Amino acid sequence: MHIITISREFGSGGRELGKRLADQLGYRYYDREIISAISERSHMDSNYVENALEKPVWQMPSPTFRHSFAVPGLFQTEQLNLLLEQRDVLEDIAKKGEDCVIVGRNADVVLSEYSPLSLFVCADMEAKLRRCRERAAQEEQLTDKQMMQKIKSIDRNRAKVREMITGSKWGDRAAYDLIINTSGWNLKELTPAVADFAQRWFART
Amino acid sequence: MHIITISREFGSGGRELGKRLADQLGYRYYDREIISAISERSHMDSNYVENALEKPVWQMPSPTFRHSFAVPGLFQTEQLNLLLEQRDVLEDIAKKGEDCVIVGRNADVVLSEYSPLSLFVCADMEAKLRRCRERAAQEEQLTDKQMMQKIKSIDRNRAKVREMITGSKWGDRAAYDLIINTSGWNLKELTPAVADFAQRWFART
Repeated sequence: MHIITISREFGSGGRELGKRLADQLGYRYYDREIISAISERSHMDSNYVENALEKPVWQMPSPTFRHSFAVPGLFQTEQLNLLLEQRDVLEDIAKKGEDCVIVGRNADVVLSEYSPLSLFVCADMEAKLRRCRERAAQEEQLTDKQMMQKIKSIDRNRAKVREMITGSKWGDRAAYDLIINTSGWNLKELTPAVADFAQRWFART
Repeated sequence: MHIITISREFGSGGRELGKRLADQLGYRYYDREIISAISERSHMDSNYVENALEKPVWQMPSPTFRHSFAVPGLFQTEQLNLLLEQRDVLEDIAKKGEDCVIVGRNADVVLSEYSPLSLFVCADMEAKLRRCRERAAQEEQLTDKQMMQKIKSIDRNRAKVREMITGSKWGDRAAYDLIINTSGWNLKELTPAVADFAQRWFART
């Protein structure tokens, strides 16, 4: 079984690349399905679940605890429960034994024992702004500055969540097998390049 | 003309990958040749040149200067001259118009107007230690701890020089087109994967 995980900067095209990779390689594709599954298991609204998992609200540690350890904050109990549900959902996916592409959810770390090919997708801010403009008609009223703030804020949250769960730095080269900068690429043309790389990666001796 | 530049962590196999890439693609390969050329032009010993370019010794700014600006240090005049020679040597290589692979020397930044494919090669410390052990018989007397310190120290210097010259962070995803983690790869098997990626990159529309 081959698992490809994709972490990505908001607006870098990581999700589209993941979808295209899955199509080209004939792999299952997981993204929103994971949120839906967590939502079902926890009997909570999927938007609420997504929000809780992506925007960490730190629980203040007690003063004693704060003075004893260098802990910046703790997940709220509910978020922690959702993270555990998420882990179980990811485990269930892996246990199916099907080749798949999983976008987001720190799946590379949660499923590390399955030796996934772990990709990180990034792009220059200019390219990310362009992509966000193209895909989000409802957000066209945002100025470039506002859009840039939105991109940075989403990525800051992703980084925070990853660091809390994994202890490793989001987007740092040490944590991934391949980091792809999509700036200047047409994703349709990039896909076979990454698919080839992935196939050779899984065939390594 | 296609230029591939390779920056790399010490011991990651970046140089060997560069050589193999050049062989497979039929590109010219530049590495030590650049130091030799600078050495000839500056009438200085090549070991001395390499050392001066790779181990920055900061000139202390005057107290007035130091208080006025947040400058951590300045290159010594001689190092600055060697860096200018290096830039000229890289420009000469590019002006030849031949497809080539250039390892090190921050060539991606110096030759940015030639739109090189800019690669960064990294690996886990364990893999780097193994590679260093295999290739450096004369260094076998170093303990793992000493070898690790050597690797870290060389990379720290590379990072310092890059930051001084380019203002961009060494090994940070924003500055490269592709970051490849060689851990677990046999470089012979990795080469065609990267060569394919490079050919598709140069063929982008």
